[in-house]
Amino acid sequence: MDIATVVGFILAYVVIGAAIMMGGPFILFVNGPGMLLVIGGTFAVTLMGVTMSDFLGSFKIGLKGVFYKLDVPQNLIEESVELANVARKEGILALEGREISNSFLERGIGLCIDGHAPEIVKNLLTKDINMSINRHTVGAGMFKSMAVYAPAMGMIGTLVGLVQMLSNMSDPASIGPAMAVALLTTLYGAIIANAFASPLADKLILISGYEKRNKDMILESITGIQEGTNPRVLKQMLMAYLPESKREVEE
Amino acid sequence: MDIATVVGFILAYVVIGAAIMMGGPFILFVNGPGMLLVIGGTFAVTLMGVTMSDFLGSFKIGLKGVFYKLDVPQNLIEESVELANVARKEGILALEGREISNSFLERGIGLCIDGHAPEIVKNLLTKDINMSINRHTVGAGMFKSMAVYAPAMGMIGTLVGLVQMLSNMSDPASIGPAMAVALLTTLYGAIIANAFASPLADKLILISGYEKRNKDMILESITGIQEGTNPRVLKQMLMAYLPESKREVEE
Amino acid sequence: MDIATVVGFILAYVVIGAAIMMGGPFILFVNGPGMLLVIGGTFAVTLMGVTMSDFLGSFKIGLKGVFYKLDVPQNLIEESVELANVARKEGILALEGREISNSFLERGIGLCIDGHAPEIVKNLLTKDINMSINRHTVGAGMFKSMAVYAPAMGMIGTLVGLVQMLSNMSDPASIGPAMAVALLTTLYGAIIANAFASPLADKLILISGYEKRNKDMILESITGIQEGTNPRVLKQMLMAYLPESKREVEE
Amino acid sequence: MDIATVVGFILAYVVIGAAIMMGGPFILFVNGPGMLLVIGGTFAVTLMGVTMSDFLGSFKIGLKGVFYKLDVPQNLIEESVELANVARKEGILALEGREISNSFLERGIGLCIDGHAPEIVKNLLTKDINMSINRHTVGAGMFKSMAVYAPAMGMIGTLVGLVQMLSNMSDPASIGPAMAVALLTTLYGAIIANAFASPLADKLILISGYEKRNKDMILESITGIQEGTNPRVLKQMLMAYLPESKREVEE
Amino acid sequence: MDIATVVGFILAYVVIGAAIMMGGPFILFVNGPGMLLVIGGTFAVTLMGVTMSDFLGSFKIGLKGVFYKLDVPQNLIEESVELANVARKEGILALEGREISNSFLERGIGLCIDGHAPEIVKNLLTKDINMSINRHTVGAGMFKSMAVYAPAMGMIGTLVGLVQMLSNMSDPASIGPAMAVALLTTLYGAIIANAFASPLADKLILISGYEKRNKDMILESITGIQEGTNPRVLKQMLMAYLPESKREVEE
Repeated sequence: MDIATVVGFILAYVVIGAAIMMGGPFILFVNGPGMLLVIGGTFAVTLMGVTMSDFLGSFKIGLKGVFYKLDVPQNLIEESVELANVARKEGILALEGREISNSFLERGIGLCIDGHAPEIVKNLLTKDINMSINRHTVGAGMFKSMAVYAPAMGMIGTLVGLVQMLSNMSDPASIGPAMAVALLTTLYGAIIANAFASPLADKLILISGYEKRNKDMILESITGIQEGTNPRVLKQMLMAYLPESKREVEE
Repeated sequence: MDIATVVGFILAYVVIGAAIMMGGPFILFVNGPGMLLVIGGTFAVTLMGVTMSDFLGSFKIGLKGVFYKLDVPQNLIEESVELANVARKEGILALEGREISNSFLERGIGLCIDGHAPEIVKNLLTKDINMSINRHTVGAGMFKSMAVYAPAMGMIGTLVGLVQMLSNMSDPASIGPAMAVALLTTLYGAIIANAFASPLADKLILISGYEKRNKDMILESITGIQEGTNPRVLKQMLMAYLPESKREVEE
Repeated sequence: MDIATVVGFILAYVVIGAAIMMGGPFILFVNGPGMLLVIGGTFAVTLMGVTMSDFLGSFKIGLKGVFYKLDVPQNLIEESVELANVARKEGILALEGREISNSFLERGIGLCIDGHAPEIVKNLLTKDINMSINRHTVGAGMFKSMAVYAPAMGMIGTLVGLVQMLSNMSDPASIGPAMAVALLTTLYGAIIANAFASPLADKLILISGYEKRNKDMILESITGIQEGTNPRVLKQMLMAYLPESKREVEE
Repeated sequence: MDIATVVGFILAYVVIGAAIMMGGPFILFVNGPGMLLVIGGTFAVTLMGVTMSDFLGSFKIGLKGVFYKLDVPQNLIEESVELANVARKEGILALEGREISNSFLERGIGLCIDGHAPEIVKNLLTKDINMSINRHTVGAGMFKSMAVYAPAMGMIGTLVGLVQMLSNMSDPASIGPAMAVALLTTLYGAIIANAFASPLADKLILISGYEKRNKDMILESITGIQEGTNPRVLKQMLMAYLPESKREVEE
Repeated sequence: MDIATVVGFILAYVVIGAAIMMGGPFILFVNGPGMLLVIGGTFAVTLMGVTMSDFLGSFKIGLKGVFYKLDVPQNLIEESVELANVARKEGILALEGREISNSFLERGIGLCIDGHAPEIVKNLLTKDINMSINRHTVGAGMFKSMAVYAPAMGMIGTLVGLVQMLSNMSDPASIGPAMAVALLTTLYGAIIANAFASPLADKLILISGYEKRNKDMILESITGIQEGTNPRVLKQMLMAYLPESKREVEE
């Protein structure tokens, strides 16, 4: 698990909380109806734009984006090269029953063992990659929508508060606090968008890119194994997926 | 019918309504001329940017986006595999007169029965897919336009109100309420954009993507049936359109 | 002629005019120098970004976008199928001198009669399509620029007015009206952008898409005629350009 | 030279200047430190984002965008057809030493005379086209950056002024003028962005598109000449690059 | 090293600093908690959206973007042509052990010497190019994120300050200074975004484009060397990567 998202999340709220508490009581910033409006409203309009199963699934995807452990490419390369060695010497059927750590690699090897033609294996695995990217894109898209709707809901709350305040200005002393309350929803919206929804969407897109790179690499290694490519050449082909710095350590 | 849009819609207005009523009388937020300006103006300038038939058609598409029932991919796969089984054993003409639940699948099978060449069938069905995506895009685009124009109309209304208020400030007591009224159009615009037009456009685009996926899958199954692909292989090809979690249940 | 743009345009100004007049005298909203700044300034900076002939041509394109009559696809299909029938029975030269309602179809048939090879006909017509799309894109782009520059000019006018007002606040009674005047340019900019330039750009892009669809269809029918495709098959190929609802009426 | 940019530029500043002078003394709008901040700051941060040679080169490109004379496509077509005629009758070497008005056409003909294979000629000229588009894109991009940074610098200046004003409000009479001064930088930023940098970027992109069209046309004519295409067919191929209206005059 | 970024950076802060100091004491603009919020918060939410290793790596990439020395294309061409000459006369193995100034060129030549087939060499080097572009894109993307989040954090800080000020307006004299302090975070956010993060992202993208051009050129020269292209032709192919002005000097 990469801790960046968790560390960043905690840090962001510590910093914002500190800024709030250094200037006065925290309670000034708590407003039940405003929170209900911004959080509830953001969820409601986000829900409007998706299907129920996407809505529920996206939170699972969001959690995965935070806690999911991506396979280290170097290990995948090593495992693939080993499989290629075995397949070359003893035939592809020798891979049957072998334990494979990565499920996508396992599925691909399984298809080879089942005797499917290379172009069908490639077609099936490519669709798999597209499907999983698509799912991540929908998930990231939902958090992006939340990052758009949260500030809008905050503005709606502030406008509601301003209209109420302006309609009744008989007591000048209450104007300041009323306006403070009105501004709170804008603050809530800005925090939800910038310290939750938008960074999470960024992370999901990034993670999805890394997962795609891993799967592209696996697809190439499966094609190589099925076509009986020389394992040493295959290794060099796969190494090219790594940044130069990591490559040198391995070679 | 997926209930997300309806549930989200109701929830959004309940939440906004609650925020309004907790702070004072609801009547403060009702302003006839302002509503006329924002709603009428938004419709008017949206109409300017499309053709009359697109304008009317888009509302129908919008309703479809909310209430349309998408065929479950698993069922489409089962039906396609069954058709492939029959076609393989008894020839493609045996499919004539058979009841087919999905109209796009029916049209494709009909073209095969009519004896069109595979590349013509593919050409026709691909155009069908593009046409329907195009229609959805125009529909979603119109709601996106509304989401842009509604806040603009709200701002125009607020500017009109501010100019009128500022031109006549003889009675200080009326300034607050006059400004409250001026702000209402901005509020209306924000609500129309964020709790109606924009989420609806999101939904239409999402639904259109799912419909395209279904049709792509159907196109692949028709090609498979026409070319006499082994039904078991065809099933595996179609299964790849499902997310992994749903696939395992089926297999 | 599609009346949507004209109807929308009139409606928008009726609605905005009504909102203005319900709140006070219309004359409050008329400010000569402000109008000069926003309208003149918008035209000036838009002109900066194009060539003189594009500037003048774009207004012609804009008018075309409003008043141009698009050929009905159904009629084009009927005419094409008729031409295909004649060409098939009596040879392509039999089409010489025949009256053809659509100029693009006429040009294509003319090229076939002149005996050009199919790939040259296709090359020439494809370039024609690209050229006309390009011209529309430049035209729409100019109105989009105006939609960006008009609010900017409005803001510049408001800033000028604010600076003048703030520099001389000796008479408190004049502050309100001075600010009202300052806000007028922002209002003008918002109206020009949202109730003129931006919807017109939307319309031009939409119309351009429909014209492209018509021309793509004509290109396919000319290729079909030249290659001697069966007119019945050709009809079905062209029908695929229509939405399903309109197709059934025809078949 | 197309005068649109120069005319638009002068017009824009006349209109803005008039709006300023009709409301009071021009001197109110002159603020040395503010100008230094906005102009200097915009240049500084734009410089940060490019290389020194791009920075200097872009101004040259900007001037070219204003004053450069594009070859008239009709003349290029005539010249190309003439060259094709000569090459067809007397062989391509007969073109040696011939004066050619357009340098890109000259370079292409030169490569043909040198006896390079058609695919190498095409490869070299295509790279030339890409290089020149690339250079224009970098130039236009720099002016676009300026259009983004100028308002930001204006806002920074206004914030600096507001903080200074708000920190010292002992003399109420000075608040108005101080705020006027603070707003000036926002005004400067808006003018630089909207009446200089952004329209210039628009123009460069447009001009670059026209130059690309010219060069694509020249590339096609060089290929035609080298392959010995019939000059009459070649003319028709090149004519397709012109809008219909200009074509008819020529034919 | 190109000094544009360093010069621009220093200039920007000199100009902003001058604007601040000409209007009053610098100390007015220093606010510890505000800086902590904007800088800390921006880093925290940027960290949320990436992985830990991308976060750390991006600063290294950012520094490289400022201080990295790009190989001069003319020198690369000369070196490549020399290598091509040697390879043509004495065979490709004669390049073994030769000192090569550019590491990408060295790697490519190394692959040729190892006897890999041309399509494998191309495949490996193309992946290398994509990997390095990808890494730069991630780095630039992180600075772009910072440019988005910094103003958002600034706005959050200002809202926090405004709420605190408005909740307690008993002492009118303190309102101005309190608001000044509240505005500071917006100022910090604007400066970080516009005079640090955004220009740096611009630079990284530009530099990445130049590096890609260099590597594309090297890839073409390696292909040419391996295929035994005539060094004079190769030189002309490579020269096409240079702008015309620089080419003439070389020829």
